[in-house]
Amino acid sequence: MRHVSTVRQFDLQETTRLIERAEYLRTAKRAEIQKNLAGMLVATLFYEPSTRTRLSFEAAVYRLGGQVISAENAQENSSSKKGETLADVFRIVGAYVDAIVIRHHSSTELEQAMPYAPVPVINAGAGSGEHPTQALLDVYTIWRELGRIDNLSVAVLGDLKYGRTVHSLLRMFAMMSNISLKLYYPEGLGLPGDLLSEMAQAGVRVEHAASVEEALAGADVVYQTRIQAERLEALEEVCAASDYAIQAKHLSVLPAHARILHPLPRVGEIDPAIDPDARAAYFRQAENGLYLRMALLEQVLKGELS
Amino acid sequence: MRHVSTVRQFDLQETTRLIERAEYLRTAKRAEIQKNLAGMLVATLFYEPSTRTRLSFEAAVYRLGGQVISAENAQENSSSKKGETLADVFRIVGAYVDAIVIRHHSSTELEQAMPYAPVPVINAGAGSGEHPTQALLDVYTIWRELGRIDNLSVAVLGDLKYGRTVHSLLRMFAMMSNISLKLYYPEGLGLPGDLLSEMAQAGVRVEHAASVEEALAGADVVYQTRIQAERLEALEEVCAASDYAIQAKHLSVLPAHARILHPLPRVGEIDPAIDPDARAAYFRQAENGLYLRMALLEQVLKGELS
Amino acid sequence: MRHVSTVRQFDLQETTRLIERAEYLRTAKRAEIQKNLAGMLVATLFYEPSTRTRLSFEAAVYRLGGQVISAENAQENSSSKKGETLADVFRIVGAYVDAIVIRHHSSTELEQAMPYAPVPVINAGAGSGEHPTQALLDVYTIWRELGRIDNLSVAVLGDLKYGRTVHSLLRMFAMMSNISLKLYYPEGLGLPGDLLSEMAQAGVRVEHAASVEEALAGADVVYQTRIQAERLEALEEVCAASDYAIQAKHLSVLPAHARILHPLPRVGEIDPAIDPDARAAYFRQAENGLYLRMALLEQVLKGELS
Repeated sequence: MRHVSTVRQFDLQETTRLIERAEYLRTAKRAEIQKNLAGMLVATLFYEPSTRTRLSFEAAVYRLGGQVISAENAQENSSSKKGETLADVFRIVGAYVDAIVIRHHSSTELEQAMPYAPVPVINAGAGSGEHPTQALLDVYTIWRELGRIDNLSVAVLGDLKYGRTVHSLLRMFAMMSNISLKLYYPEGLGLPGDLLSEMAQAGVRVEHAASVEEALAGADVVYQTRIQAERLEALEEVCAASDYAIQAKHLSVLPAHARILHPLPRVGEIDPAIDPDARAAYFRQAENGLYLRMALLEQVLKGELS
Repeated sequence: MRHVSTVRQFDLQETTRLIERAEYLRTAKRAEIQKNLAGMLVATLFYEPSTRTRLSFEAAVYRLGGQVISAENAQENSSSKKGETLADVFRIVGAYVDAIVIRHHSSTELEQAMPYAPVPVINAGAGSGEHPTQALLDVYTIWRELGRIDNLSVAVLGDLKYGRTVHSLLRMFAMMSNISLKLYYPEGLGLPGDLLSEMAQAGVRVEHAASVEEALAGADVVYQTRIQAERLEALEEVCAASDYAIQAKHLSVLPAHARILHPLPRVGEIDPAIDPDARAAYFRQAENGLYLRMALLEQVLKGELS
Repeated sequence: MRHVSTVRQFDLQETTRLIERAEYLRTAKRAEIQKNLAGMLVATLFYEPSTRTRLSFEAAVYRLGGQVISAENAQENSSSKKGETLADVFRIVGAYVDAIVIRHHSSTELEQAMPYAPVPVINAGAGSGEHPTQALLDVYTIWRELGRIDNLSVAVLGDLKYGRTVHSLLRMFAMMSNISLKLYYPEGLGLPGDLLSEMAQAGVRVEHAASVEEALAGADVVYQTRIQAERLEALEEVCAASDYAIQAKHLSVLPAHARILHPLPRVGEIDPAIDPDARAAYFRQAENGLYLRMALLEQVLKGELS
């Protein structure tokens, strides 16, 4: 039994194994895999609402024949308002179920509570910290769309300072070979220094672009993220989120084999006019999350996660 | 595969087929129908809360052996607050499930988003627009209680201007033979002009009553609806909702074979003293919703809805 | 068919039968009991949020092969805000499911509505009234930890005036032999007079302690409860909740065979430093709730509850 807390737990071998299993589960006949988690019960505890991530995990459990109990709005509807610790919640709910999937507002609280859980806990996004299953499904998507997860030129756009999905993804890149990053972000929202050092140490090349076009030119993968309006307002130099949006006119500089990813939801960072383009991979990426989470749940619940 | 968006999709033949199937599912042994949706997964996304309608759909799925993932409070707990479009929600959640049941505050948004859904979407009530499954279960109830859905004298009481269940039901009456309506409503809350024209064109006779007694006299079916207090206050001529309520004293003018329907919830429009009367059909009507929705889900999920 | 409304329904024989069944269900192989409620559907309606109790009931249903439909936040998300009565809710939801588990803010409303439910209703906590399944699991825990439910010296600490779990538990003690209580509580938060009379009449001995140490000395069972800060503030004589908290230093006076129970959640009433001590039984107590509720659901759903 092991908790899933950070992408740092996943080496290249384990990541590859998960990807291959996800690919198998995608193509398997439903009836064939409908017993894999039979009799198993999973709790989804969401202290921050996230309908997409929650439904994705729950669908994954059901597709494998398991069952789910859920707190859609745990913050408001549970005893956490009275001051109960997360450790107590894990001990109690952990007595009812076989695994806990949790979204929490504090990565520190989550880390401190995990050791008290009698069953595996899966981090489904924690504060400004990690969102490991998002990074795994991102890597799965790159593998599926491009056929490889090394030798990649990757453009990363948006809020690189606070975006936890970007941080988790870059940490995964650190263990792959021959990765080049081109970053484009509002002044003041660049990568944190420690993450830049980590990239350098891992041999990931990092360049800075001065426009969407410059970022996209020659990219194999474009990873676009959301910039929260309040972040921009807080910056001295005012700029518009739309300066960082990918629009139809930008597609001409993007190689035909490239793929655009986005963790979603999007709110204007990608023009919907791009959706029909074969390079727009973000909805396929969301679907990949279902299969990747099925693979992960299988491993966690069978205690096979090394 | 087809979405269920409006009652206009259902002709007499299809309505009859649904009713007959609902009647079969009601009487079938549980074990007999428990495999009909085996392995199927349905999402219920409620952007406006409606415990009754949501639980009715979810119970229908479970009775047929399917599974459900649910957003009880999608408006507050999802990315719609961040500005995500409903089209994006449908594309993403549609990758996880086999069908989506949705309650939404805007019929326009719902109509625009439906084409993007990769799986069937069932409208479970949309703003001031349609609520097709309510109208279908109303018709099912009339068929079950009176043995026919034509040659009917129907009293319709309450807020006829804003009540979406009334609008959907009247559109169904438009395709039946020999229907007479007697309407009783507060000044200013009558039927919209286009619906009146539609009734005239379809040969539905429309009279206006001046009291509850006058409306009920000679009726085969009484359809009572709720008047929201704020609607009345907004009217120039102040009147009381209780003037439109059905009370025990009114039952004497109602034929013994007649039936009283109400989409529920009720808040004073029908005196609970009437509940034990055989003509009070509203709780049986609510139960009918379960079987009608089972029949509809079967058709939608088997792609058999013509 | 019978509702579960109060602990007064359970005599010693029925309580013992439930405990023995709970113990069987705890040790049974999962596959062995996974069909016990097959095809059954239970609704959990929570008009006051309580994630722990709700998840415990839902897990109990799933472990026995049943299915659940749920309103996590019924007060906000249902028609009760519009003024619908609970009797109407029971009649309608009772047409969809085989049993209803309800948490409600008013024991009076719940009592009045129960007769209208066409299926069994289980009270999962009602206002300042009863919480019968908590009392049953408390008794189950004493039986399991000490091997008996009579001849007990019990220390009860905290808010004895408003704590509904304490009230329900004491009513169960009233039917057992040779029970002595030692009570320790803030001035003004003692047991209600009628409950004191009830204890006297049942032959339960009651003493009052002047400190945590005095209460714990010689106890077989310590039942600790939460004191809500606002209760203390309302008292004339100000005192600190921490005066009533069990701390590591208190353990020296507690017999080695004694057990500490707490209905949870706890917010400072028990120092977490005590958790590893074998006498700290509160997390095992929470787990016992799962098995006790499984046993109760079986009986209710099979109509076997005498």
